Amino acid sequence: MKGWFTEFHTPHVGITIRIKEHLYDGRTKYQKIDVIDTPEFGKILLLDNLIMITDRDEHVYHEMMTHLPLLTHKNPRTVLVIGGGDGGVIREICKHPYVERIDQAEIDEEVISIARRFFPKVACAYDNPKVNVHITDGFKFVKNRRSEYDVIIVDSTDPFGPGKVLFCKEFYRRIYQALRPDGIMTAQIGTPFYNATHVKRTFKKLRDIFPVALPYMAHIPTYTDGYYCLAFCSRQYHPLKHFDKNRYLRLELNCKYYNPDIQRGAFLLPTYVAKLMND
Amino acid sequence: MKGWFTEFHTPHVGITIRIKEHLYDGRTKYQKIDVIDTPEFGKILLLDNLIMITDRDEHVYHEMMTHLPLLTHKNPRTVLVIGGGDGGVIREICKHPYVERIDQAEIDEEVISIARRFFPKVACAYDNPKVNVHITDGFKFVKNRRSEYDVIIVDSTDPFGPGKVLFCKEFYRRIYQALRPDGIMTAQIGTPFYNATHVKRTFKKLRDIFPVALPYMAHIPTYTDGYYCLAFCSRQYHPLKHFDKNRYLRLELNCKYYNPDIQRGAFLLPTYVAKLMND
Repeated sequence: MKGWFTEFHTPHVGITIRIKEHLYDGRTKYQKIDVIDTPEFGKILLLDNLIMITDRDEHVYHEMMTHLPLLTHKNPRTVLVIGGGDGGVIREICKHPYVERIDQAEIDEEVISIARRFFPKVACAYDNPKVNVHITDGFKFVKNRRSEYDVIIVDSTDPFGPGKVLFCKEFYRRIYQALRPDGIMTAQIGTPFYNATHVKRTFKKLRDIFPVALPYMAHIPTYTDGYYCLAFCSRQYHPLKHFDKNRYLRLELNCKYYNPDIQRGAFLLPTYVAKLMND
Repeated sequence: MKGWFTEFHTPHVGITIRIKEHLYDGRTKYQKIDVIDTPEFGKILLLDNLIMITDRDEHVYHEMMTHLPLLTHKNPRTVLVIGGGDGGVIREICKHPYVERIDQAEIDEEVISIARRFFPKVACAYDNPKVNVHITDGFKFVKNRRSEYDVIIVDSTDPFGPGKVLFCKEFYRRIYQALRPDGIMTAQIGTPFYNATHVKRTFKKLRDIFPVALPYMAHIPTYTDGYYCLAFCSRQYHPLKHFDKNRYLRLELNCKYYNPDIQRGAFLLPTYVAKLMND
């Protein structure tokens, strides 16, 4: 890879990024892995030529996937991360000292080792004794687990290739069962602007399973059009009614994106996104 | 222009859009004008090679610049638009029947004629008898006007070339004087992610002049990183305290982006944007 890297969001539009250096080029059992260094975003991790994280904006996604459910749940002690091999979600979970156990089901061991090698600030929590890494298929890992987790964070790749199964209804059903009765799941969904049908279908599945299934939005410059949809699903908690602002203040998280205003504002949707949920 | 059009947001990153046809290529006294047709966004208006509007997402910007101040002001009767030659802001203002007079100060007559020719759905309100077009420099137009307008909407180009003067402190001072004592101004500012310094400096100027000067955000896929900062400035009205939801409901605006949730949510800022205002 030389000169410029372009990720296409549709066949007709993409983001083009200048490359300083192609640092790593490999292929695992599951996917192609590349690491490029860029003047604008620092290092970028690509899986199958799609941007997973960049040094400059990875915090947005990781903060929004993690603090939002953890500060809504009254007492989260056990957390499961599915995917998330770069370690960013785990790093954010470790900022909540009352979490006692973090399990991770990552299918591709090499994503973790590449993250530890090239993104040490993202993968910094892998040595925390609370973290238990299981190199396994997340879909299989959650099968037959019952009432085990307070929070499950589904940090998958996009809905094709190895990540496809992590968007199917059976997977969400297994997640529901693996959660305690007051459990919360967050998951990455996609872009309502370029991929409205996918977002709509996914929420249809989630609504069939979870009593609370809400879209929320985050601005992540390097994810497609920059306006990315995540899902908050729970069996009882609501992210606005049950948000624990005092705990947020006590923790002194120093987030660069997330804050109590965003915990509310992320759920206030433009008409075209709200309509996808109601149609 | 053939194949692909790329707008660079910095020297190291840009949006790349497939071109179907280059429909118009011209140069006026002030700037280069191009119209391209694209499979993803429909027609796109370029001024000096920068995207001004696209068929597909122009509504976001125009709705957010217009309805937000008009539904905050108690009784807006006279509105001034500075720039906005494509006519999108004027089209949205015309949805408010109590507005009696709309003045526009557009420096470049050819932008209006190109918009009428290639973007008839955007420029559709130019024949409305309420609209008075003045082909003149907006900076000069507002000089010596006193307490004349309820709302002023500054729909400028970016802060260089002919649009540069519309970001200077003297211009904002003239706007302040041209507003009635309860007047409101909205203006386009820029992207806090790629151009933090510009956003910070501009709000410093606005804060020195207006008692209320608040940033608000809109997701416009074809504007830089998709997360664009606008300014709400007033001499007394506040967009959350004085928003007239009943009037919104009566008007049946049928906006694709704007709604009462967004009127609130647009002001709830990520930490890095909020910090720009406080530093």
